[in-house]
Amino acid sequence: MKLYACLGSGNSYKPWLALHQLGQAFDLILIDVLQGEQKSHAFLKINPLGVVPFLEIDADKRMGESNAMLWYLAHDSVLMPASRAEQAEALQWMFFEQSKLEPFLSPARLFTTILPDHRQERAGDIMGWQAGAKAGLARLDAHLGHRDFMLRSGYSIADIALFGYVHVLEEAGLSMAHYPGIARWVARVENTDGFRPLVDLRQPQDEAA
Amino acid sequence: MKLYACLGSGNSYKPWLALHQLGQAFDLILIDVLQGEQKSHAFLKINPLGVVPFLEIDADKRMGESNAMLWYLAHDSVLMPASRAEQAEALQWMFFEQSKLEPFLSPARLFTTILPDHRQERAGDIMGWQAGAKAGLARLDAHLGHRDFMLRSGYSIADIALFGYVHVLEEAGLSMAHYPGIARWVARVENTDGFRPLVDLRQPQDEAA
Repeated sequence: MKLYACLGSGNSYKPWLALHQLGQAFDLILIDVLQGEQKSHAFLKINPLGVVPFLEIDADKRMGESNAMLWYLAHDSVLMPASRAEQAEALQWMFFEQSKLEPFLSPARLFTTILPDHRQERAGDIMGWQAGAKAGLARLDAHLGHRDFMLRSGYSIADIALFGYVHVLEEAGLSMAHYPGIARWVARVENTDGFRPLVDLRQPQDEAA
Repeated sequence: MKLYACLGSGNSYKPWLALHQLGQAFDLILIDVLQGEQKSHAFLKINPLGVVPFLEIDADKRMGESNAMLWYLAHDSVLMPASRAEQAEALQWMFFEQSKLEPFLSPARLFTTILPDHRQERAGDIMGWQAGAKAGLARLDAHLGHRDFMLRSGYSIADIALFGYVHVLEEAGLSMAHYPGIARWVARVENTDGFRPLVDLRQPQDEAA
């Protein structure tokens, strides 16, 4: 299995973390999105859509969309919720993440921390993204205020999907101190078996694995 | 089962259509979002988040997110793709719909067709949403150019998820003539067993079902 991923990306981190926690062997190929490598001739031959993360399961089976990858990878594993109702609940939060959090946290983080030179000129946009993120984060914080993980049944792909961008909300210019339920959950996720932090997603030659 | 839905909403239409095509009995309760009914005291007691669609499966089991509802409803049915790879492919497109199409088509349609009085003042926003939608629609059109349904295995919840907003793209001020692959697929979806159009989603007392 090959994972094409971008350094520092919350979406790339999700399947990377799941692969580690599942003990699944894979090759990591880093694509430098800030340098436009995802639009290079070489990468477009692999994924004509020119986006990462991208997962190559075998020569015939390739997929995009980080949360769909989580679903695929977790099949019949401890990371997949067991019942029909729990699976639907996991998906509910995973769709929530892609529509109510990621579209706000990701660009706010990009222009606050990853490309800080543009912070001044994008100040208005950043405020808008932060406002959008706050609405979703308040809802998530309330949910996590009275449970250990996203689902009562325990740690699952729903946690990984939410963790991707939520754990770095301060890099989007927001304050974890406002979200005590989220803060406690972040610490719990970091203590799950086989957890590895986002900074460990780096050049293959630097990988300890 | 009770479905809380909003007249004319593509997201509400998805679980409504699936329930019809699966022959599942349900009560439809219309919530008038344009009048703010989703934020009424009565509805907030049902769904504290104040959004529709909302599905009440039983007294203890309630869920939001239209695409997660599709997943729940299609369990063990003809609308659920059979294999692990096909299920992941369906989810891939369903996540794509919620991040690359719905966030653009839905507001463009709202301010172009549903609330046309605001069309002038939101002209700049509408152009931005249309531009975002066009990128996703081009990708979808290419996908549908050489297959009958979203998955090669046949009609599924992936089609229903995409159909919700894509079939009314002209109400978002876009032209179906630019998307021949999508246009042929829309006609095929409209010919599936038990299909009912969006305009049939209306007051319970007017329902033929």
